[in-house]
Amino acid sequence: MKIGIYGYGNLGKGVELAAQMHEDIELVGIFTRRDPASVKPLTNAKVYGAEALSRFKEEIDCLIVCGGSATDLPKLTPALASDFNLIDSFDTHKNIPAHFERVNAAAKAGGKLALISAGWDPGLFSLARLYAASILPNGKDYTFWGRGVSQGHSDAIRRIAGVVDARQYTVPIESALASVRAGESPDLTTGEKHKRECYVAIEAGADKARIENEIKTMPNYFADYDTEVHFISLEELHRNHSGMPHGGSVIRGGSTGLAGEHRHTVEFSLKLDSNPEFTASVLVAYARAIARMHAEGKIGAVSVFDIPPAMLSPLSREEMLAKML
Amino acid sequence: MKIGIYGYGNLGKGVELAAQMHEDIELVGIFTRRDPASVKPLTNAKVYGAEALSRFKEEIDCLIVCGGSATDLPKLTPALASDFNLIDSFDTHKNIPAHFERVNAAAKAGGKLALISAGWDPGLFSLARLYAASILPNGKDYTFWGRGVSQGHSDAIRRIAGVVDARQYTVPIESALASVRAGESPDLTTGEKHKRECYVAIEAGADKARIENEIKTMPNYFADYDTEVHFISLEELHRNHSGMPHGGSVIRGGSTGLAGEHRHTVEFSLKLDSNPEFTASVLVAYARAIARMHAEGKIGAVSVFDIPPAMLSPLSREEMLAKML
Repeated sequence: MKIGIYGYGNLGKGVELAAQMHEDIELVGIFTRRDPASVKPLTNAKVYGAEALSRFKEEIDCLIVCGGSATDLPKLTPALASDFNLIDSFDTHKNIPAHFERVNAAAKAGGKLALISAGWDPGLFSLARLYAASILPNGKDYTFWGRGVSQGHSDAIRRIAGVVDARQYTVPIESALASVRAGESPDLTTGEKHKRECYVAIEAGADKARIENEIKTMPNYFADYDTEVHFISLEELHRNHSGMPHGGSVIRGGSTGLAGEHRHTVEFSLKLDSNPEFTASVLVAYARAIARMHAEGKIGAVSVFDIPPAMLSPLSREEMLAKML
Repeated sequence: MKIGIYGYGNLGKGVELAAQMHEDIELVGIFTRRDPASVKPLTNAKVYGAEALSRFKEEIDCLIVCGGSATDLPKLTPALASDFNLIDSFDTHKNIPAHFERVNAAAKAGGKLALISAGWDPGLFSLARLYAASILPNGKDYTFWGRGVSQGHSDAIRRIAGVVDARQYTVPIESALASVRAGESPDLTTGEKHKRECYVAIEAGADKARIENEIKTMPNYFADYDTEVHFISLEELHRNHSGMPHGGSVIRGGSTGLAGEHRHTVEFSLKLDSNPEFTASVLVAYARAIARMHAEGKIGAVSVFDIPPAMLSPLSREEMLAKML
C-alpha cells in the first residue's frame, strides 16, 4: 500500500514516522507547497513540490492531507478528492456537514474515496460516543479534554501586546471527572469540566496585571473558565513546555433494568505524549482502510462511522478471529 | 425492526428489557425450550415454545440467541442460522474460529446474516484491542477483568463437598493496573493482573480448612491466583452478593517518534451493575446493524470487526455528522 503526505508540518512529520511502523505501508513522498529543497524530512522520504503530485495519480493508494482546518483543508481536500483517495483531519465540528458534502461531490466525480475528520477528536472520540450511545440509549455522555496543549488558546495569548510566547494547557477538573465516573450524571458546562493553565513569557517591563486580566477576560477562550496564569521566562517556557501532550476521556453513563435500576459506565481515554504523532498514527491506520475499501469499489466521502474496524488491521480475518476477538 | 429472543435466562431477560429502550425495535416474542406457560416475562412480551419459531421466519429481522457457550450455542446457532438473521454471544475464545466456520456455512446456505461473539468480551473489548493495535503497532495490550462476578468460578466452588452456595469476584490488582496505565509495559501473567475473592456459604459443621484449601489449590481456576476465601451465611450471601456486576479495562501502551520517544496510552473501560443487561444492550444495538446489513445484501457469518459503527445507530448520516462526529 502506497501513501503520500500533502503538507509537512507537525502532523505531516507524524505521518512520516507512523508510516515506518507498518510493514505493508510505503511512503511514496512528501508533497509541499514550500520550496522542496528547503524541507528536510526526518527519514529518507522523498520530498516533492506540490505541483509534482499530479504525476503520482496512479501510484498513490491514499493521500494524507495534513493542513489546518481554518483555511487549508476546506479548499485542499475538495480540490484533491477527485484525483486521489484521501484522508484529512478536518476538526471544525460545526462545519463538518458542509465539508463532507463538498468532498463527497468531488470524490464521486473522480471515482475516489475520501475519509474526512479522522484523528482522535473528531475520530476515536466520535466512535466512542457513537458506540456507547447506540448501546445505552438511556444515558448521557461527557467529553473531557486534556491535560493537553491547545494551540488555539496558546495563539490567542500570544496575540496580546507584551507577550513573547505562551503555552496553554486544558485541564479536566478532577471533581467533575469523579462525579461523571461515579455515574452521578451531573449537568456541566464546558467551563465546569475544564480549567485553563497558561504559561506566559513577556517582554521586559510589560504589565503583568494587564496581561493577566486580558487573558482571564478574553471571551470564548478564557472568560468562562477557571484560568491560572503563570509568568515564566522564555527559557523555562521552551525547556519545560515545548512538548505537545494531549488526551482526554469520553464517558457515557447509562441505565438498564425494569426501572433503570442498573447503572453502567463506559469510558474511552487517551493519554498522549505527542498529539500530532498520535493523530498521524490514526490517519495511517485509516489509510489502509480507505485503500482497501476503494479497491472493493466504494467511492464518495465517508467518516470513521462508515469504516468496518477490520479494515484498519493488517491481520487476516483468521488471525483476527483467533487472536483479537 | 423486529427481533426475537431465543432462550430466556438472564441474558434473554436483559434483551427483553433493552429492546424497550429503542423506539425503532419491536420484540416479536420470546421463544423457550421450556413449557411456555411456565415462563413469566418481565414485560408484556409474548412467549412461545421453541417449535413455534418456524412460523416467524418471515417476520423476525434478527433473532438473538441467548444460550450458554459450553453446550447450547455450538449447536443452536448453526441450526438456526440458515432460517434467521441472528446474533449470539459465543464466548469460548479458543473455539471461535470453528464456531464461525459452522455458522458461516449455515448462514450462507440460507441466505442469512449471522453475527457471532457479540457482547463486551468478546465484543467491545475486542474492538478496543483491534482499534488500538491497528493505530499503535509498536505497543502492547492488557485486558483486566472486574471487579465482577465470574459464574464459572462460582460454579467451581459450589461443586466442592460441603458448600451450599458461593460467589466469586475477579478483582484487578491495583498495582498492576497502575503500572500499565503509567506506560511501564510490565510483563504480567493473568494471575499477576487479578486476584480472586470468594464468598462461601457452607453446611453446618463442614470443615472450613479443607474447603478453603480445596478452593485455593484448584488447578486453572484458583491455584495461580492470590485467592481470598470468606465464609459467610447463606442469608448474607443472598443479601449482599446476588447482583451480577462486572467490567474491566483494555489498555494499550505504545510509542511513536523517531526513536519511540513518545508514549501513548489508550484505555477502554466498563463498570457494569449488571453484566447480563449490559451484554444484552450490546446485542440489541448489533441486531439493528445485522438487519440493515442483510437488507443491503450481506450474508454469511460476521464478527463485530465487520460492522461499520454507523450501522449500530438509529441516527441518520446527517445527524451523526452534525452531532456525534
